[in-house]
Amino acid sequence: MPPATPDLAALDAASAWAWVAGELAGAAGSARHPFHLLTLATVTADGQPDMRTVVLRHFDPAARLIRFHTDIRSPKVQAIRAEPRVALHWYDPALRVQLRATARATIHHGDAHAAAAWAAAAPMSRACYTTAAAPGSAVDAFPEGPAAPDAGDDTGRDRFAVVSCRFETLDLLALHAAGHQRVRLLLDRDPVAWTVLAP
Amino acid sequence: MPPATPDLAALDAASAWAWVAGELAGAAGSARHPFHLLTLATVTADGQPDMRTVVLRHFDPAARLIRFHTDIRSPKVQAIRAEPRVALHWYDPALRVQLRATARATIHHGDAHAAAAWAAAAPMSRACYTTAAAPGSAVDAFPEGPAAPDAGDDTGRDRFAVVSCRFETLDLLALHAAGHQRVRLLLDRDPVAWTVLAP
Repeated sequence: MPPATPDLAALDAASAWAWVAGELAGAAGSARHPFHLLTLATVTADGQPDMRTVVLRHFDPAARLIRFHTDIRSPKVQAIRAEPRVALHWYDPALRVQLRATARATIHHGDAHAAAAWAAAAPMSRACYTTAAAPGSAVDAFPEGPAAPDAGDDTGRDRFAVVSCRFETLDLLALHAAGHQRVRLLLDRDPVAWTVLAP
Repeated sequence: MPPATPDLAALDAASAWAWVAGELAGAAGSARHPFHLLTLATVTADGQPDMRTVVLRHFDPAARLIRFHTDIRSPKVQAIRAEPRVALHWYDPALRVQLRATARATIHHGDAHAAAAWAAAAPMSRACYTTAAAPGSAVDAFPEGPAAPDAGDDTGRDRFAVVSCRFETLDLLALHAAGHQRVRLLLDRDPVAWTVLAP
């Protein structure tokens, strides 16, 4: 049975945010959750948007932020350093729910956040950071996948970065045959409020 | 059986582009194709990225463009008018393929492209353009879904727009356990060329 699309008309702002937070917490902990992968948009130095899929590694409902991991040599790190305002997007065609966030990104490299995430990373995840060529750089041939390092091997640690993205706005869209429902959650209010939007 | 991830090492640039073109043609014609929905990124007037899911309505392999439909009152139309350089993103977790394009967008409103697409649009699709409130505008309550108009009812036609996005760059990423494969397809070359990139 497919999951049920939430009926926003039966919720209020606080319970809608609790629903989103529950889904994101579940997605950070499970590779099978449809929100485990999200799309990150940045702006290039010449003002053009750019997108890629990233993996949701952590969600902090109190701080209203998500975290993903990346290679410090990656072009998205350069883009975030130049313009930390980013956008995040999730869509699950089975649930028929879209989440859109504007967020402010912070890069953690060589700090306590990066150290903790590196310590918890599986060998296969650590392997991604052992490659000679920087992600997105031109190479002569398709590289073989890097071998998983032995436990305790910290090769790649100096390239490992954690990116935190703190939500500034969050739009929730639920598609229903009887009428699509869209709200903007105002997370800076206490309690959380919403504005109902035309879908 | 899940679909097979393409092995780019067994292809060349022309056959990789032919594979992409075949998938996008299939996706434009079938709501069940995983590439039927894509994510569109634009840049707001103040330089922040913004994303939303759109529906792939048409793919033209010769012109290297895709088209989607939207309401002329939609905020994404304003964004495209101010900055026509957009980005497009597809990811299929079953196929384990990501497509990333930079593209230049053109808005068709009240022209022959819009007229042809409107003439071909199903009543339920036309219904989206009959709403009183502009998409994304604040409303007092969740609106009911609009009723499908009768055949021949052109209400909403003046709000219906077609957006063409012509590819400028196209990155293709295929995830394989033995090593991820990534290329940038150089569509302005004849024949099409590629640059192999570190994933």
